[in-house]
Amino acid sequence: MKIWEKGTAVDEKIERFTVGKDRELDMYLAHFDVLASKAQAIMLAKVGLISTEEKDQLLQGFGELEAEIAAGRFVIEDSFEDVHSKIEFYLTEKFGDAGKKIHTARSRNDQVLTAIQLFLKDYTRQAAAKIMALVDILLQKAETHQADLMPGYTHFQAAMPSSFGLWFSAYAEHLLLDIALFEAAHTVADQNPLGSGAGFGSSFPIDRKLTTQEMGFGQLAVSAVGAQMLRGKTEKTLAFALAGVGATLSKLAYDLVLYNSQDLAFVELPSAFTTGSSIMPHKKNPDVFELVRARCNALQALPNTITLCVNNLPSGYHRDFQLLKELLFEPMMQFVDILDILIFALPQLSIKPDLLSQAKYDGVFSVENINQLIQAGVPFREAYQQVGRAVDDGSYVPHREFMTTHLGSIHNLGLAEIRAKVEQVRQHSAVLSR
Amino acid sequence: MKIWEKGTAVDEKIERFTVGKDRELDMYLAHFDVLASKAQAIMLAKVGLISTEEKDQLLQGFGELEAEIAAGRFVIEDSFEDVHSKIEFYLTEKFGDAGKKIHTARSRNDQVLTAIQLFLKDYTRQAAAKIMALVDILLQKAETHQADLMPGYTHFQAAMPSSFGLWFSAYAEHLLLDIALFEAAHTVADQNPLGSGAGFGSSFPIDRKLTTQEMGFGQLAVSAVGAQMLRGKTEKTLAFALAGVGATLSKLAYDLVLYNSQDLAFVELPSAFTTGSSIMPHKKNPDVFELVRARCNALQALPNTITLCVNNLPSGYHRDFQLLKELLFEPMMQFVDILDILIFALPQLSIKPDLLSQAKYDGVFSVENINQLIQAGVPFREAYQQVGRAVDDGSYVPHREFMTTHLGSIHNLGLAEIRAKVEQVRQHSAVLSR
Amino acid sequence: MKIWEKGTAVDEKIERFTVGKDRELDMYLAHFDVLASKAQAIMLAKVGLISTEEKDQLLQGFGELEAEIAAGRFVIEDSFEDVHSKIEFYLTEKFGDAGKKIHTARSRNDQVLTAIQLFLKDYTRQAAAKIMALVDILLQKAETHQADLMPGYTHFQAAMPSSFGLWFSAYAEHLLLDIALFEAAHTVADQNPLGSGAGFGSSFPIDRKLTTQEMGFGQLAVSAVGAQMLRGKTEKTLAFALAGVGATLSKLAYDLVLYNSQDLAFVELPSAFTTGSSIMPHKKNPDVFELVRARCNALQALPNTITLCVNNLPSGYHRDFQLLKELLFEPMMQFVDILDILIFALPQLSIKPDLLSQAKYDGVFSVENINQLIQAGVPFREAYQQVGRAVDDGSYVPHREFMTTHLGSIHNLGLAEIRAKVEQVRQHSAVLSR
Amino acid sequence: MKIWEKGTAVDEKIERFTVGKDRELDMYLAHFDVLASKAQAIMLAKVGLISTEEKDQLLQGFGELEAEIAAGRFVIEDSFEDVHSKIEFYLTEKFGDAGKKIHTARSRNDQVLTAIQLFLKDYTRQAAAKIMALVDILLQKAETHQADLMPGYTHFQAAMPSSFGLWFSAYAEHLLLDIALFEAAHTVADQNPLGSGAGFGSSFPIDRKLTTQEMGFGQLAVSAVGAQMLRGKTEKTLAFALAGVGATLSKLAYDLVLYNSQDLAFVELPSAFTTGSSIMPHKKNPDVFELVRARCNALQALPNTITLCVNNLPSGYHRDFQLLKELLFEPMMQFVDILDILIFALPQLSIKPDLLSQAKYDGVFSVENINQLIQAGVPFREAYQQVGRAVDDGSYVPHREFMTTHLGSIHNLGLAEIRAKVEQVRQHSAVLSR
Repeated sequence: MKIWEKGTAVDEKIERFTVGKDRELDMYLAHFDVLASKAQAIMLAKVGLISTEEKDQLLQGFGELEAEIAAGRFVIEDSFEDVHSKIEFYLTEKFGDAGKKIHTARSRNDQVLTAIQLFLKDYTRQAAAKIMALVDILLQKAETHQADLMPGYTHFQAAMPSSFGLWFSAYAEHLLLDIALFEAAHTVADQNPLGSGAGFGSSFPIDRKLTTQEMGFGQLAVSAVGAQMLRGKTEKTLAFALAGVGATLSKLAYDLVLYNSQDLAFVELPSAFTTGSSIMPHKKNPDVFELVRARCNALQALPNTITLCVNNLPSGYHRDFQLLKELLFEPMMQFVDILDILIFALPQLSIKPDLLSQAKYDGVFSVENINQLIQAGVPFREAYQQVGRAVDDGSYVPHREFMTTHLGSIHNLGLAEIRAKVEQVRQHSAVLSR
Repeated sequence: MKIWEKGTAVDEKIERFTVGKDRELDMYLAHFDVLASKAQAIMLAKVGLISTEEKDQLLQGFGELEAEIAAGRFVIEDSFEDVHSKIEFYLTEKFGDAGKKIHTARSRNDQVLTAIQLFLKDYTRQAAAKIMALVDILLQKAETHQADLMPGYTHFQAAMPSSFGLWFSAYAEHLLLDIALFEAAHTVADQNPLGSGAGFGSSFPIDRKLTTQEMGFGQLAVSAVGAQMLRGKTEKTLAFALAGVGATLSKLAYDLVLYNSQDLAFVELPSAFTTGSSIMPHKKNPDVFELVRARCNALQALPNTITLCVNNLPSGYHRDFQLLKELLFEPMMQFVDILDILIFALPQLSIKPDLLSQAKYDGVFSVENINQLIQAGVPFREAYQQVGRAVDDGSYVPHREFMTTHLGSIHNLGLAEIRAKVEQVRQHSAVLSR
Repeated sequence: MKIWEKGTAVDEKIERFTVGKDRELDMYLAHFDVLASKAQAIMLAKVGLISTEEKDQLLQGFGELEAEIAAGRFVIEDSFEDVHSKIEFYLTEKFGDAGKKIHTARSRNDQVLTAIQLFLKDYTRQAAAKIMALVDILLQKAETHQADLMPGYTHFQAAMPSSFGLWFSAYAEHLLLDIALFEAAHTVADQNPLGSGAGFGSSFPIDRKLTTQEMGFGQLAVSAVGAQMLRGKTEKTLAFALAGVGATLSKLAYDLVLYNSQDLAFVELPSAFTTGSSIMPHKKNPDVFELVRARCNALQALPNTITLCVNNLPSGYHRDFQLLKELLFEPMMQFVDILDILIFALPQLSIKPDLLSQAKYDGVFSVENINQLIQAGVPFREAYQQVGRAVDDGSYVPHREFMTTHLGSIHNLGLAEIRAKVEQVRQHSAVLSR
Repeated sequence: MKIWEKGTAVDEKIERFTVGKDRELDMYLAHFDVLASKAQAIMLAKVGLISTEEKDQLLQGFGELEAEIAAGRFVIEDSFEDVHSKIEFYLTEKFGDAGKKIHTARSRNDQVLTAIQLFLKDYTRQAAAKIMALVDILLQKAETHQADLMPGYTHFQAAMPSSFGLWFSAYAEHLLLDIALFEAAHTVADQNPLGSGAGFGSSFPIDRKLTTQEMGFGQLAVSAVGAQMLRGKTEKTLAFALAGVGATLSKLAYDLVLYNSQDLAFVELPSAFTTGSSIMPHKKNPDVFELVRARCNALQALPNTITLCVNNLPSGYHRDFQLLKELLFEPMMQFVDILDILIFALPQLSIKPDLLSQAKYDGVFSVENINQLIQAGVPFREAYQQVGRAVDDGSYVPHREFMTTHLGSIHNLGLAEIRAKVEQVRQHSAVLSR
């Protein structure tokens, strides 16, 4: 059933091509379409476009649909083009004219868009909460491993002493910064487009402030033209947020893959986390982190893919936008899988002790040797050259004893300060509010 | 069943995350894995690593598997990690030790890679043939509509007289050029990596020239390290080819969406091709071409997505490469759908006659007015300014009669010359050879 | 002069390749490097690492440098690798040892990073302010043209009545939403990395809270490892913000290019804004908006370019990051040019009156015809089919009189509500605070 | 001077914005514009549109311009919009009307496009030749270091014995495959668009086969519409080729950066190639390879940047295309710099001997241990598990002696076979023909 049916059949090949994966993907939207339709029904009754009885019938129908969806029993049969046709059919079967009237003063365009806004807004909140759970785990690991030193690398070369405390807390701080992009995605998804119709409003005396309030949107997308332009923008802003965290977690995974190599051997993964080789029995490959990395890298490609599909189209709806569901929804779910697997795996990571006692890392203390000379009154540039010559001629003896005091250094991680930053984000981010 | 199993269980969560969609995607590879395994068995017998009996048993098994695959009865159960485990299990169940020996002198790495090379090579040939079918249709349409004039646009502004003959033949020539990228993709896919093992060869006395010949590869990927580096490169080169045609067909679809608007109204689509609006009964939306455009645009994003997943990894296999199957195989199938829908739809496109008689297109003849003055001896720059002033002061009268003679112009499309180019490509492209 | 010089000459070819465009690009950083160095000097004196006299000398030097920079007299000669070498040389020439000591307890890494953070933070604020100026212009135009109707398009087809009021205010609201990404970019740029050294801190007793305060940073990037990881992330987050506005303004420009075509002819550009054709005197091409579109599209490519350069690198500095200056700084300046040209051009745009009286737009009133039937008691689906049949059989007569009442519709633009949203953003966005 | 000048001044701000960097970038095109204009003059005289005297005057002028360009004395003053205006001005100053007539039967569109086609075609040939020079160097290094073993890595873990012979020859083979994309770029650039005018041809009786021959193009872009559609496509196809080699060389550079680390220490760079740290005197950073990597990664972003600028534009010229010069020309030059620096640096790379004698690499021989068992009659799966248990319980003793025999393995590099492939490419690639 297509709600725009006028009698001419659409060619079957064309239809299969145009419907694509809509039925499958629309399952994500069912709950939110019902939620928006409830608000619509309440508003239509309030402004007199439907009667109270009709509203009550519709609300009863929405209640039943909600129960079906919650119980996992809701399905979109092949005879329906999408979730919206299915729901409208359900209501019409049951309540006749009242069912048909739910489409009063709205278009398929604002209906789909509203469901997507609600879905993406809900998602930003759930994903952000999960990111914060990972932040907490990282800070716990930083605390546990604050005394575990490791060589710090630049240019892929061992450079200076570092620590797992610094390393874990670095990623905690970065995920915290990544919330800023989720906040932006939440801001864009928190605009109510309902009532914008096909993008130009209507002559019905609807109350858009009421539906904004009923659906819990923070703001109304006022201009009907602007409301319709959210299609593509909300998706892309969320994609930026996914890409932002993707970059952070890809780097974390890259570090762990390296740290798990025989050459560095800084960490050990539980055997149950590694996979073997079909021909090399000595291999314990860190596949899970390689796949976290790869999936995070695919997420980083997402904004560009979305951009290519929606760019250089003038304002107003284009069918191209339909593809956005296919492009975005599955990666959204994969992102949650990535967070879950890290929340599961990171606590089980073991750290190797005494890494810096290996001779190959002697050089990382050269900065300390210089600092010692400086404290003995040698100007920096001369100290630098003196130690440099010692390294070059082989007479260099590392100065292994050192103590850092400044905030954010090995012996003063500043975890309290970082936790204060966490608290501040929790307080001020709309995406994290309850 | 995992072939690298040593006794330690991999955590179930980890396993689900790492296996991903492999079983589903590997169905595309089943036929090619059997094909490569046959070549491997023949070669192993030839160099004495298995007996003739073992080879015959294996070939019998491959015959059965081929029949299962061809009949659509082949399945990869959940108990198998991938298609390769399944096939090896089948052989081992049936032939015991002989079945196990098929893995002699090869690694999972070169096995997977070889199947992918064969699959992608086969695909480039099938896709290129379908592109050539579309070229033929476009040239037929060019011939049919060689007398149908239309305004030619630059800067979204009507500029000069053009014709549907020029327009259709333009896309034919461009698809023909796009074959060059398919040729490149074919070249890269036509390298045999079998025998490179995990990327470093082996001490088995295998005969790689023989397997190259048995599988019909054009060349051997000689260096084992280089053979392994094909992973990601073959996929990306094919993605370039898909993106190249994607750009051409996205533009064609964009043109048709515009030409179908009320403002231009150059073409008419059969009703069965258009879809309506849920609130606007006058709309006949060209959704099929909008979705062709969107899907072609998504294809253009593919090279970048692949690049992000494989870039900045040193030489040697990484599990990240597994994701390439997920990223590439579905778009490959969608590309074929796009070609099919155009091959079906383009012949049914109607062209509106007499487009240039509309007053709003008077300006497109200004170049002809100038040329007339030039032929009367006025230098070009002066003629240009004279006509320009007439346009500005409203005294301009279009010179509608004109005749072009040069190759590639309205009245001399040069279809024979284009067909000669088509023939040349058919003769010289390896991707189009039989 | 290179500050890490130990005596071995770097090959000249290598040096030219590695220095690249640094000297030129570093001119953007000079002011911010001085600002950060001042904070460093004040802090070093406070914690006793330099004397008060040394501090005073250094501050005097910074004052002189600031004056040179402000007067446009500051240059980085070819003998210097970058701005930092030049400034250090200046101080050392002038104050001897005191000059050398400014590098105490900092590395080139945190020095460059701090200057970049300050520069990008300052930029986000200036750019955001300019975006808000454009928002104001768009709202003024919306008010001026609230009675100017136009056909609203979907699928490139005239769909329903719309208005320039809705169109201008749509872009105002969208730019306002785009501030959210600038807010995110500002959050990331507002982290102080100074004191993180080469990414692992130091054993000097520095006071990082003091430098945070002196430079006006909102927060300290606590973990030294995390501070260094800002490199690439701040740039990319800003690139997301530029891409976000880029998408909005690309669409605005696309609309205007279309609206300027002979077929639509909705707007008129001043002659001084258009360019001609070398052969077609009737052409008035909207090149400025085409180039706005193209530059905005290039901006949308920027996040991906940055991602490709910094992705799949483990934590810690890599020389690859040097390229980010080249990739980002010029587009940043081009973005400001785009805003300036629109602030200049949009007020001069003329709107054509009475667009909807053209017969080709009759169909856009079909929704009003349906609504009239609905008000007469016909159910929506029946009304839809009745009007649809009239359109198909040619008996359709448009119902041109209509009045919208809901917020965000043609006759109720809700400019007051949009202005309230503008005010709210001004109040709550750190990037817009004074 | 603008050749489309009709009297109305373009606003200065608008002009500065629209001209952009054209004058600077057009210097690359000067030589090719002269070359194309020569062909045009010869053809115009042949078909009688100019006289023999006029042609001779023009050819004299082109000779002078060529000499100026070759001597580096040619400049485009600020009073000219672009190189084409400058050249036309030069001819008109000198020869009056004859100078003006060079623009007969061509438009700025096909003039610019022809110069770009010639430039890019010439570039593909020069770049491809340089790539082949690098192939030769890599094969020489492979030969020199064929006995130098190294551990081969998968998953960032030492996996099996490999060699520098395999490693160098791998990159030689891959660059050879990358020529396939240059061949595609050459094919697209080898189409002559001259005579297509503004994209719709003209009514002049020009001879396009003659100009094709005069300029040495392989083919005529027949359809005038299709000829104009080359704009953007040629650039993008070249960008694919640059990205292809970029991926190969980025990986090579990544390997070398890793191999230069203290942990692996497989190679040594001349001191003159490395740069130091401002605080760590022991560092010898491989900046040159990091920058090769970064620049190669930026090149890999190029196809997407170009795509975003030209995508979703209907057929016909748009001013957006002007930006392509800015986006492409500088990276083209940087690509040549990258090749030059590698041609200079790779021969100076030293390889460390006896890498595999280190205990940490014992595991890489496990496959050999298995093979030994297999040769003693143990089935593969059992041998695999037996060696696996030995590795796990610490009783494993590496079997260091091994000999490979198959083509593409450590002891049989197959350099002759690779050189035969090189020769085949040299013979059959149009981009490499003389």
